[in-house]
Amino acid sequence: MLETTIAAIGPADEAAMAAARELHGRLTKPAGSLGALEELAVRLAGLAGACPPPLPEPAAVAIFAGDHGVHAQGVSPWPQEVTAQMIGNFLAGGAVVNAFARQAGASVTVVDVGVATPLPATDPAVLDPAVPAAAVLDPAGSGSAGSAPAGSGSTASGSGGSGPTGSAPAGSGSAVLDPAVPRLVAASVRRGTRDFTVTAALTRDEALAAVQTGIRIADELIDAGAGILLTGDMGIGNTTPAATLIAAFTGADPLDATGRGTGIDDPTYAHKVAVVRAALTRHTPDPADPLGVLAAVGGLEHAALAGLILGAAARRTPVLLDGVIAVSAALAAAAFAPDSVRAMVAGHRSAEPGATVALRHLGLDPLIDLGLRLGEGTGALLALPVVTGAVRVLHEVATFDAAGVAEK
Amino acid sequence: MLETTIAAIGPADEAAMAAARELHGRLTKPAGSLGALEELAVRLAGLAGACPPPLPEPAAVAIFAGDHGVHAQGVSPWPQEVTAQMIGNFLAGGAVVNAFARQAGASVTVVDVGVATPLPATDPAVLDPAVPAAAVLDPAGSGSAGSAPAGSGSTASGSGGSGPTGSAPAGSGSAVLDPAVPRLVAASVRRGTRDFTVTAALTRDEALAAVQTGIRIADELIDAGAGILLTGDMGIGNTTPAATLIAAFTGADPLDATGRGTGIDDPTYAHKVAVVRAALTRHTPDPADPLGVLAAVGGLEHAALAGLILGAAARRTPVLLDGVIAVSAALAAAAFAPDSVRAMVAGHRSAEPGATVALRHLGLDPLIDLGLRLGEGTGALLALPVVTGAVRVLHEVATFDAAGVAEK
Repeated sequence: MLETTIAAIGPADEAAMAAARELHGRLTKPAGSLGALEELAVRLAGLAGACPPPLPEPAAVAIFAGDHGVHAQGVSPWPQEVTAQMIGNFLAGGAVVNAFARQAGASVTVVDVGVATPLPATDPAVLDPAVPAAAVLDPAGSGSAGSAPAGSGSTASGSGGSGPTGSAPAGSGSAVLDPAVPRLVAASVRRGTRDFTVTAALTRDEALAAVQTGIRIADELIDAGAGILLTGDMGIGNTTPAATLIAAFTGADPLDATGRGTGIDDPTYAHKVAVVRAALTRHTPDPADPLGVLAAVGGLEHAALAGLILGAAARRTPVLLDGVIAVSAALAAAAFAPDSVRAMVAGHRSAEPGATVALRHLGLDPLIDLGLRLGEGTGALLALPVVTGAVRVLHEVATFDAAGVAEK
Repeated sequence: MLETTIAAIGPADEAAMAAARELHGRLTKPAGSLGALEELAVRLAGLAGACPPPLPEPAAVAIFAGDHGVHAQGVSPWPQEVTAQMIGNFLAGGAVVNAFARQAGASVTVVDVGVATPLPATDPAVLDPAVPAAAVLDPAGSGSAGSAPAGSGSTASGSGGSGPTGSAPAGSGSAVLDPAVPRLVAASVRRGTRDFTVTAALTRDEALAAVQTGIRIADELIDAGAGILLTGDMGIGNTTPAATLIAAFTGADPLDATGRGTGIDDPTYAHKVAVVRAALTRHTPDPADPLGVLAAVGGLEHAALAGLILGAAARRTPVLLDGVIAVSAALAAAAFAPDSVRAMVAGHRSAEPGATVALRHLGLDPLIDLGLRLGEGTGALLALPVVTGAVRVLHEVATFDAAGVAEK
């Protein structure tokens, strides 16, 4: 499944990009006056292979949640239980990501790829069995998804599409993308990673399973009609593997790749940098082997996000990156398939310094830079109207000719 | 009217700001993790005198349009007729501001405060007589607005409020804020300014009339229910008076305050800087006399925007600033009433260098920085979801206690 997804990721459509540039020159505004929005629209035309590219609607946030063995090293002041508790908050609609998603009309899908502590009691109506963990662990991609029980009240509507991976996701399109009802997908690979200061965080098979979960979620959301995917994450301690992934993929020094996450004091920060450095020394991850890097020093949500990005790119669908967790996963996706960068839009510049290191490596400029460091997908959601606006210009703005406006 | 508006602009409500800070600390997110959005929400609480402050909805863009005598000096490659032609484009819904306003659900009010060439034939249904030019020129504020014919299909709904200026705007609230129908308000003070390289651009009375038009428009939109005002502008050549205003109010050198506007070549740019420098030398405008500065080297849309900002501040309503024209007007508003800065939110950092000079002088950090230099209100509209999101957090996000999430 990973190989077929990677094989489906191709180069940009240069003709569509040229058409978008030409159209921009005829619209009623001074040439270049929309700044970064113009090149963004051109990139999305190249991704879609169409000018104008489709409006990126509806939007779907996928929040991958996992826990981290390295939490035992004291890299975060928060108890690990908060990962599961925040999932409860997401499903109840009480988190910042929910507030921003409601505002943007985006759906929220929470995917348990590896939470360590028990999840809160959940209304079964939002527990979607479409992607059972057993199917995820089947590397042939021919698992039990087709025979899984249908979701409560689900129909086949919206799921008729077929991704390049050949998967046939179950679940109702309307329920999948309902902005009013956050949804939980059970796809746990294992209850948290191992402590990568002691051993590899994951086996290669576990890392692969998480990547494939991300690909399946991308396919499911796009089959249901999503026009853009937004990355979200939840996992106490997950900025430590993110920093380690960024150092591994970019060669940056751990001091430059590591930040203070949710807010840690100077001694904890120094310890966190030392933990990242020790992990790199122990595993010497090879950036040319992204699955190996993810297995050695990654997290399950990082691996799944890499899969989501690859899945979106294979479907020529833009994926709006959130913060440091997302961009560390994006480095893995780019290592799997360099052309996947074409599908990426950097939502914002996280306050985490590693995010800037990763964005520079990817050659991406963020749309928003407001010092956010929350995660969950919040920065991506803030940037969504900019992306939509950039595309909308090509759909709706009049040309000089049509509007009867003189040119200079 | 100007004096009563200025008198109504008071200091921030410190108790509401403290309440917003305290609430932010209890919400389910790490303290400070929403970066600039947290302080923005605190500022808006202080402005509204309430925690949480009201959601800034609905949003209303006011585009003030005017022409400029200094256009005769060859500071722009565009013909002056484009100002009127673009008004036609705004009313037809074909401009970028319309596309962004539709996306944001914002209404668009175009105000002719001084267009030089004939306006395009306009559907009378969108020509709102509520603010006739005669009333605008009446300094007592007791003009003919009350006896003006009602707009097509208008009712008194939404216009029952009374501003601090005591004005009683006519017009239907629903028509005023209808995002689907751009509206033209006829409030021309004169058909373009005079060439300020030769004489003062405006008399003091003309500048005052334009400022008062801005105040009236603010009152009308807020009376109709607007929760936030967005500044827009249209006027071929209007970056030249903007640069001159910025140099006059901040003391910046014309070279630092002047940009390339819609895009001019090197010789034209050097000439534009020389024109700004010559105007400052001729008029030696006194920044402590903002009406005198606006009259000497301003534009009618700049003066009206200063009034819009003052009117919003007097009503404790946020005003989202667009680009260089808006921030040059904001300097005038701040000179009239320093506390008006509390109502200002900087939407974006225009590519025009003078915008950064003005924002620094005002102490404002922009929300978006994407190299836009279009005007019309486009940058403000892109930033609107960030403002709304910042306030929405205080309304909708669960506290740690309520969500059952542990703290660090």
